Amino acid sequence: MSDSPSTPLLDTVATPVDLRRLKPEQLRQLADELRAEVIAAVGVTGGHLGSGLGVVELTTAIHYVFDTPRDRLVWDVGHQCYPHKILTGRRDRIRTLRMGGGLSGFTKRSESEYDPFGAAHSSTSISAALGFAVANKLAGTPGKAIAVIGDGAMSAGMAYEAMNNAEAAGNRLIVILNDNDMSIAPPVGGLSAYLARMVSSSEYLGLRSFAKKITRRLSRRVHNAAEKAEEFTRGWVTGGTLFEELGFYYVGPIDGHNLDHLIPVLENVRDSEQGPILVHVVTKKGKGYAPAEASADKYHGVQKFDVITGAQAKAPPGPPAYQNVFGETLAKLAETDDRICAITAAMPSGTGVDKFAKAHPDRAFDVGIAEQHAVTFAAGLAAQGMRPFCAIYSTFLQRAYDQVVHDVAIQNLPVRFAIDRAGLVGADGATHAGSFDVTYLATLPNFVVMAAADEAELVHMVKTCAEHDAGPIAVRYPRGNGVGVPLPEVPQVLEIGKGRVVREGHKVAILSLGTRLGEALKAADALDARGLSTTVADLRFAKPLDEALIRRLLATHEVCVTIEEGAIGGLGAHVLTYASDEGLIDAGLKLRTMRLPDTFQDQDKPELQYDEAGLNAQHIVDTVLKALRHNSGGVVEARA
Amino acid sequence: MSDSPSTPLLDTVATPVDLRRLKPEQLRQLADELRAEVIAAVGVTGGHLGSGLGVVELTTAIHYVFDTPRDRLVWDVGHQCYPHKILTGRRDRIRTLRMGGGLSGFTKRSESEYDPFGAAHSSTSISAALGFAVANKLAGTPGKAIAVIGDGAMSAGMAYEAMNNAEAAGNRLIVILNDNDMSIAPPVGGLSAYLARMVSSSEYLGLRSFAKKITRRLSRRVHNAAEKAEEFTRGWVTGGTLFEELGFYYVGPIDGHNLDHLIPVLENVRDSEQGPILVHVVTKKGKGYAPAEASADKYHGVQKFDVITGAQAKAPPGPPAYQNVFGETLAKLAETDDRICAITAAMPSGTGVDKFAKAHPDRAFDVGIAEQHAVTFAAGLAAQGMRPFCAIYSTFLQRAYDQVVHDVAIQNLPVRFAIDRAGLVGADGATHAGSFDVTYLATLPNFVVMAAADEAELVHMVKTCAEHDAGPIAVRYPRGNGVGVPLPEVPQVLEIGKGRVVREGHKVAILSLGTRLGEALKAADALDARGLSTTVADLRFAKPLDEALIRRLLATHEVCVTIEEGAIGGLGAHVLTYASDEGLIDAGLKLRTMRLPDTFQDQDKPELQYDEAGLNAQHIVDTVLKALRHNSGGVVEARA
Repeated sequence: MSDSPSTPLLDTVATPVDLRRLKPEQLRQLADELRAEVIAAVGVTGGHLGSGLGVVELTTAIHYVFDTPRDRLVWDVGHQCYPHKILTGRRDRIRTLRMGGGLSGFTKRSESEYDPFGAAHSSTSISAALGFAVANKLAGTPGKAIAVIGDGAMSAGMAYEAMNNAEAAGNRLIVILNDNDMSIAPPVGGLSAYLARMVSSSEYLGLRSFAKKITRRLSRRVHNAAEKAEEFTRGWVTGGTLFEELGFYYVGPIDGHNLDHLIPVLENVRDSEQGPILVHVVTKKGKGYAPAEASADKYHGVQKFDVITGAQAKAPPGPPAYQNVFGETLAKLAETDDRICAITAAMPSGTGVDKFAKAHPDRAFDVGIAEQHAVTFAAGLAAQGMRPFCAIYSTFLQRAYDQVVHDVAIQNLPVRFAIDRAGLVGADGATHAGSFDVTYLATLPNFVVMAAADEAELVHMVKTCAEHDAGPIAVRYPRGNGVGVPLPEVPQVLEIGKGRVVREGHKVAILSLGTRLGEALKAADALDARGLSTTVADLRFAKPLDEALIRRLLATHEVCVTIEEGAIGGLGAHVLTYASDEGLIDAGLKLRTMRLPDTFQDQDKPELQYDEAGLNAQHIVDTVLKALRHNSGGVVEARA
Repeated sequence: MSDSPSTPLLDTVATPVDLRRLKPEQLRQLADELRAEVIAAVGVTGGHLGSGLGVVELTTAIHYVFDTPRDRLVWDVGHQCYPHKILTGRRDRIRTLRMGGGLSGFTKRSESEYDPFGAAHSSTSISAALGFAVANKLAGTPGKAIAVIGDGAMSAGMAYEAMNNAEAAGNRLIVILNDNDMSIAPPVGGLSAYLARMVSSSEYLGLRSFAKKITRRLSRRVHNAAEKAEEFTRGWVTGGTLFEELGFYYVGPIDGHNLDHLIPVLENVRDSEQGPILVHVVTKKGKGYAPAEASADKYHGVQKFDVITGAQAKAPPGPPAYQNVFGETLAKLAETDDRICAITAAMPSGTGVDKFAKAHPDRAFDVGIAEQHAVTFAAGLAAQGMRPFCAIYSTFLQRAYDQVVHDVAIQNLPVRFAIDRAGLVGADGATHAGSFDVTYLATLPNFVVMAAADEAELVHMVKTCAEHDAGPIAVRYPRGNGVGVPLPEVPQVLEIGKGRVVREGHKVAILSLGTRLGEALKAADALDARGLSTTVADLRFAKPLDEALIRRLLATHEVCVTIEEGAIGGLGAHVLTYASDEGLIDAGLKLRTMRLPDTFQDQDKPELQYDEAGLNAQHIVDTVLKALRHNSGGVVEARA
């Protein structure tokens, strides 16, 4: 593994200030060295590779042409920002990417003034850049804003909302559409087809034709049909109408790996009196690294790998990933139930919907990065008698919260939600944590909210979702692999709102929701060893609660602790509210709720994140012991 | 007031089946009678008038041409559905619109099989219709889906997401763009300008030209630039490119009040082998009722009115509406603080941002129906040093939940949220209730969440928001008028996380958040009269909690009750969690939480809705008395 390529020119560039001292003819070498450094670093750390390699020249050109950080550069999603980090003073830490205490795998405001806006979810960049541009315009201070957004991210509604409002920024806003015909999976939908037609029907603009075009283009807007007709017949416009209709000056498409084109085009755009401008740049994901270019996913996200061969470190063999258990279970159920269908928002493999799609292509829908549409489309399917499963990560389901409330819950439509990446997620950090779904779903009338304690439970819960036609139902489960329990041959339909006692004791009760169950059982062993006989229940349902079970456990144990992989307002709050409603706390109740802390936790290994969160076995033991020791007279004393 | 116009032909039409028996030449009369009936009914009930009047002919034509309810008709937003309700078996109850126990002011599945999908929030119709269309396609059953969506609703991202996915439906999906150049306020943005250009640059298509056009249009898709150029030079296409690029066959624009055009066009579209088709129909909001046509807002939403004069019933004089207190306070603060700016998503008057915009037009932004963009745009403004206020109704802020989490909370950016319509909202019913914001915001790290107990408190809280640069902050307040307290001359900055004791007692404590404070004080009087000395605290903050105050109240009172205008997971849950974390419940604590029930409540007068919710003074008294009577030994007994 070549950890440190030879990079004599890059070694002289600590920040964009150094970069701007280079001559244009040196930039090709710089870009090559930058690419080699990105490959070497990700070889060591793993992470997002393909998208960063695709923007090496673009990153170089933007920092060369624009006055960053005064000019605000906003990378959409942010996973393509590794070259940007190397050029903006973070090269010394680039081999700590996505590690605990290391650099974030995304842009992050606290890391650098060159990251004016953090991202990790898609399609926010134009809105944010518009905010920067308008703020500068209002204040009368210099500074442009540049959003770099992929074609995949353009399928999300919020990108369109922002474009529809972009005229307010005038020439202070530049949107660079990084068109690599690829988000994580191949893109879908009308917009994608539109972009493909534009690119395929044109030669990329060379310098000469570009100069001619931009001069004419920026000199006046073309509004009426006659002028438009003239444009088309002259044949010098290949597309861009869609963006122009929304108020942009469209420039492109241009080759995003050709610095001799990129630099003058960006200089022209920078100096334009008119705007906003959309620059359509065509790039190749994984560019310049043969194994990435040859791979189907262009090395979108990779393990550590050998730079020479491209061979990625294999994950150690282990239990199946939750996403695959979901996808395979659903595919199997669909063999005998033709109402089942599956919807993903641009995450076919991440959600396991790819497994379903392989078996039932007609009933699998990848809607692109469009969670809002995904949910309401599912509601329409359900209203017409289908049994739709929306498979969306916890953090991305936030994008569709109103659709969940307004289109699904209020109408009590049986949309099934398969919520992957629930809880803490490791290297992707705070932006990808699935911390809030139990809180924001269990507060909704009509909803059933489950969490799987292991992969076998997930199988039963998928079956339970399928059979639940009474209203909306959700099952959440974590990122990563199961715990290694055998998968059931025949999935069972669980009784709605019934938990299970996994281990019977009589002094301490742990009420678990989700995959903390393993830690709960470890804690129970430790408590037993101390003579504290411990019950462990897997509540399975955050809503409706198993009130009978909870009442019994509260009544028959000296200390009760709830534990969940979610923030305040979820299971613990619901159990406390039930206990309060019923007057069960009136006579004194040692009940504690363990949950995610009131902070956004940075990336780290998941088990270390849970350590930091205080949700591992030892923390359960400590919570129980502290509660036992606690002087129950606290309130009474204060009252006296 | 003419309550019942003469409607001999309409009297023969109970459902669309009857309608379809009429001859085409009778439809003009039917539409005229339908319009008269809509005007008469809304004169009695108040409600949404202008948008219904704009679609009288369209409603008639759709039900005449299509086989509803087998063909699924989905009205976007749904406030234009009164003529539809009259034609689909609900005329007998049309004078109960928006009243308790009466018809909903929106489409509603439980009301009629002719309402296949309920709505009230904007821009959901294409996604839902696509669900119906695809379900039928999968099942191989007949049935098309028709979405009718306004030009204003087209500014929302989810409409674009749906259009981007529409090709999956083929000819089963028809989108009717009802272009009245007006949503609630005049529309904004690039799309709106685009539509205006299309309409202004064309004569509406007459029958002959339409027939020619649709034949050619539907016979083949036009993809390459050369063919497109030919189209344009021939001059028979006036627009639609944007929709065509997204995969639609575009038809229009056509006059939406001319039944002689509408009927054959819709018949052609219905019978088309190809699709999806977008029909661009131009209508006039308020059409056919002179007072509405002459009014600036086209009688979008009206009080009861006199049909002859158009004069609306005046609301009784009273305290100022919360929205105006907000808008005027903010406008005043902005006089001496040029960092303050205000953002609304198509609700300038509903949010009071119109007051701000009048005083500070450069710093007011109406982004259209685009809550996602509104929030991230505000985050960008905040990141560049502005003090942005996002004024969005509680229920619509759900549209931007991910942006609140990902762009604001995680980055700890000081975006100010002015959350109007918090709690129950009266005639608009469940879809507009602001029930969940405290739960979904207070679970987020970094957030400050306030609720105003009255209009004077709101003034202080707006000032507190303005000065809070440490991170995100929200203030929620209800629909309607204040309680009549004097407004403070000089707004004060409240200490973050500090409540206030409004009334001191020693046996019972009521911990209130928001405008239930008045009911809490009434309850306190009633309890005092029974010899139960009662403290009332206005906690002001759901997050951070005033822990010292709560600890003191819990310790020094026999019964404590929290009350809030929100669902489970909010203030009550946070107080209980605090009490549990601190072990304050260990020795016994009579603590109850009063909150919205676990149901979606239908429309009614707000005070009756709160009665139904169990959140009025008498309910507080009952809760306290029940808690006092409750045998504290419940758990202990069960344990024994």
